[in-house]
Amino acid sequence: MQTQALAFDVFGTVVDWRRSIARQVREVGERLGIDADWDQFADRWREGYHAGMERVNAGRDHWKIVDEIHRERLDRLLDDYGMASGLDEIEKQALNRSWHRLDPWPDCVEGLTRLKSRFVVAALSNGNVALLTNMAKYGGLAWDCVLSAELARCYKPDPRVYQTAAQLLCLPCDQVTMVAAHSFDLRGAQAAGLKTALVIRPHEFGPDGQPDLQPDPEFDWCARDLPDLADQLGC
Amino acid sequence: MQTQALAFDVFGTVVDWRRSIARQVREVGERLGIDADWDQFADRWREGYHAGMERVNAGRDHWKIVDEIHRERLDRLLDDYGMASGLDEIEKQALNRSWHRLDPWPDCVEGLTRLKSRFVVAALSNGNVALLTNMAKYGGLAWDCVLSAELARCYKPDPRVYQTAAQLLCLPCDQVTMVAAHSFDLRGAQAAGLKTALVIRPHEFGPDGQPDLQPDPEFDWCARDLPDLADQLGC
Repeated sequence: MQTQALAFDVFGTVVDWRRSIARQVREVGERLGIDADWDQFADRWREGYHAGMERVNAGRDHWKIVDEIHRERLDRLLDDYGMASGLDEIEKQALNRSWHRLDPWPDCVEGLTRLKSRFVVAALSNGNVALLTNMAKYGGLAWDCVLSAELARCYKPDPRVYQTAAQLLCLPCDQVTMVAAHSFDLRGAQAAGLKTALVIRPHEFGPDGQPDLQPDPEFDWCARDLPDLADQLGC
Repeated sequence: MQTQALAFDVFGTVVDWRRSIARQVREVGERLGIDADWDQFADRWREGYHAGMERVNAGRDHWKIVDEIHRERLDRLLDDYGMASGLDEIEKQALNRSWHRLDPWPDCVEGLTRLKSRFVVAALSNGNVALLTNMAKYGGLAWDCVLSAELARCYKPDPRVYQTAAQLLCLPCDQVTMVAAHSFDLRGAQAAGLKTALVIRPHEFGPDGQPDLQPDPEFDWCARDLPDLADQLGC
């Protein structure tokens, strides 16, 4: 059975969330005259995203889209960094939408365009549909369609997210390949019956981060970037 | 409240389903040595689509995607036109996917690109996600995202289809404008709180058809094609 569609993780795999977020919160902080470690702010915001999704998947919280999860953590961080009183509600909403404006890794626009010539290329992120749609517009990511955990109302690595995506694409799971920089995501996809491609993103978590760098024989492909994946898939 | 996103009906509004289907069934018919009125074949297939969706919306049938509804009617038509025995299952599936290969009206690729520069442009069709995704690839329709009645599990003009779309776009209904060539669709969108733009498609139903040609003061905009709509919306 041949792959017909590629489903892409987005945060970290296609876009550089850490530097994009740190840059945008730094701009707001500087406007407020606040000096802080903005990379750490980005990391702490990202931690809140994971914790919020885990609460939903564990049934300890009702269904919430990622924009809401981001906002809850943002409100705590704005308190912690002394920024809350300097921003009105509209400004907080705009800051929360920093996650809609993340820069693609330099290889991605070209890589996606090549992969798109042969496969259906779909976003399949935990980010909500609006977030992914706005991000694609911002970054020039030419998805054939935007799929999301939101459409399954649970978060990766719950197998229902991957299965819902395959169902919406009208494809058997083993004709869909999940592309991600994170082993947990690919293991979830594998458990749901999808094929898997690891893309190495050494700089996702900054200089002290611990990205998934090792080619793992459990996965079907391992690529150093999207053009490399396109080469391997014959695009 | 300003429009942020345009939700497009697709069959008839963006693509010329009748000529595209007639052409593809004619090709198959000629290969089988059968002569028939292929425009009529296309019309009868289309009737089955409407009837199938009405059964679902009325609760007289369980949820079915449009690919399934098309296939049920196709099987009857192949019998009626004496084509059933000449085609194997793979060929029938390929013929059913004619609906994934519909030619855009000549103004649409340019028009969508212009509208996309200012608005989120989303498909919002009764066609299922895979059908719309494949059609966009086939015709070069650069949707920002593919939304579908499939995501609400009921068909337009049920208000839930339009409301689900607005919810997925994270927009209030009155910041989404439904663009369609059919008054029934726009009235449904209006009932759900969306804004409405009628696009005139005089040739959708062929020489004897009865398209919605009259500008209707109930709708917010009336355009003769997508570039005209782009002009009116300041793109």
